[in-house]
Amino acid sequence: MKVYEFKAFPNPYRVRIALAEKGLTNQVEFVQVDVPGGEHKQPAFLAKNPAGAVPVLELEDGTMIAECAAITEYLDHLQGEPVLTGRTPKERAVIHMTQRRIEANLLDAVAAYFHHATEGLGLALEVYQNKEWGEKQKERAIATLDSLNEKLAQQPYMAGDNFSVADITAMAGIAFGSFVNIGPAADATHFKAWQERVNARPSAQA
Amino acid sequence: MKVYEFKAFPNPYRVRIALAEKGLTNQVEFVQVDVPGGEHKQPAFLAKNPAGAVPVLELEDGTMIAECAAITEYLDHLQGEPVLTGRTPKERAVIHMTQRRIEANLLDAVAAYFHHATEGLGLALEVYQNKEWGEKQKERAIATLDSLNEKLAQQPYMAGDNFSVADITAMAGIAFGSFVNIGPAADATHFKAWQERVNARPSAQA
Repeated sequence: MKVYEFKAFPNPYRVRIALAEKGLTNQVEFVQVDVPGGEHKQPAFLAKNPAGAVPVLELEDGTMIAECAAITEYLDHLQGEPVLTGRTPKERAVIHMTQRRIEANLLDAVAAYFHHATEGLGLALEVYQNKEWGEKQKERAIATLDSLNEKLAQQPYMAGDNFSVADITAMAGIAFGSFVNIGPAADATHFKAWQERVNARPSAQA
Repeated sequence: MKVYEFKAFPNPYRVRIALAEKGLTNQVEFVQVDVPGGEHKQPAFLAKNPAGAVPVLELEDGTMIAECAAITEYLDHLQGEPVLTGRTPKERAVIHMTQRRIEANLLDAVAAYFHHATEGLGLALEVYQNKEWGEKQKERAIATLDSLNEKLAQQPYMAGDNFSVADITAMAGIAFGSFVNIGPAADATHFKAWQERVNARPSAQA
């Protein structure tokens, strides 16, 4: 398998964590895409992912899988522990719901702030900006961090008792947030305890 | 199981189609939520789904599942044919990717146009509107319909050879689009053939 990525960017980080959790990192060839240089918006890469975004997982038969949640779904069904997307119908539903909420309300919200209300990747790549929208998404991300702090008072991980893909998405959201000065409030003790918990996992260094 | 919904709205339609496909419709009690009246933004409903959106699936043990893709994940793992979210890791990955793309680029784009660039649900409920953003999302939805038409020249269903949750999301996107005059181009013959194909399924009347 190949993973097209730009190392240290938030969405590629999600897939690196998932690979590390599943013990699959050494089965993948990482191919760097020059995102700051706009390579992800050029025809050669758009043929791999019409959305013009990294990461993309290329399977042995040439199939291209984009969207981090879909890539994780693939990796999680290949093999082994820990199970990242749930075992029972109910576990699967709760994890999928939680992952999607954190993706929309934290990670994608931070990304929208970055691309719309800051210089983002620079004028040449940020061809449409809507600053008001970006600022609104920053508010959304901050509100999400507050509500996650409350939730984590009741449970150790984002989707319940076990680490899951919902935690991975939140880890990427926090990494992106720290880059644009969006983070948990000083008194968000439950959230910070969660951060210590997930950062202690070897996969956090992926 | 209970489903909280507002019948004939696009997201509830997704769950009704999934229930019909899985033969589970008669195992569900449907509870109508007065969305035009704002009931979905009141505390009693927000306790069920903090996102303030329908549909929500309530399981027998009281667990609330929101997000249509998560609800479909649950229903699909309960039982039976047809399989809506894939069997093999690769099928699952392709279907998840395709569903997510159509959700973001068609259904959610049409919804953003409706809520931001039209009267939406009315002034009392549309507390933040960004008209330019809404218009941009309309462009995105139209471009998505064009690219889906090209894709459907190669394959009968959105994610390949079989009907899946990706088709369900597209059906809801088209239903919402028709309400705000966003639809396939007159010469989008492959897309229209797909519409005839899915509309011939009993679940389309759900």
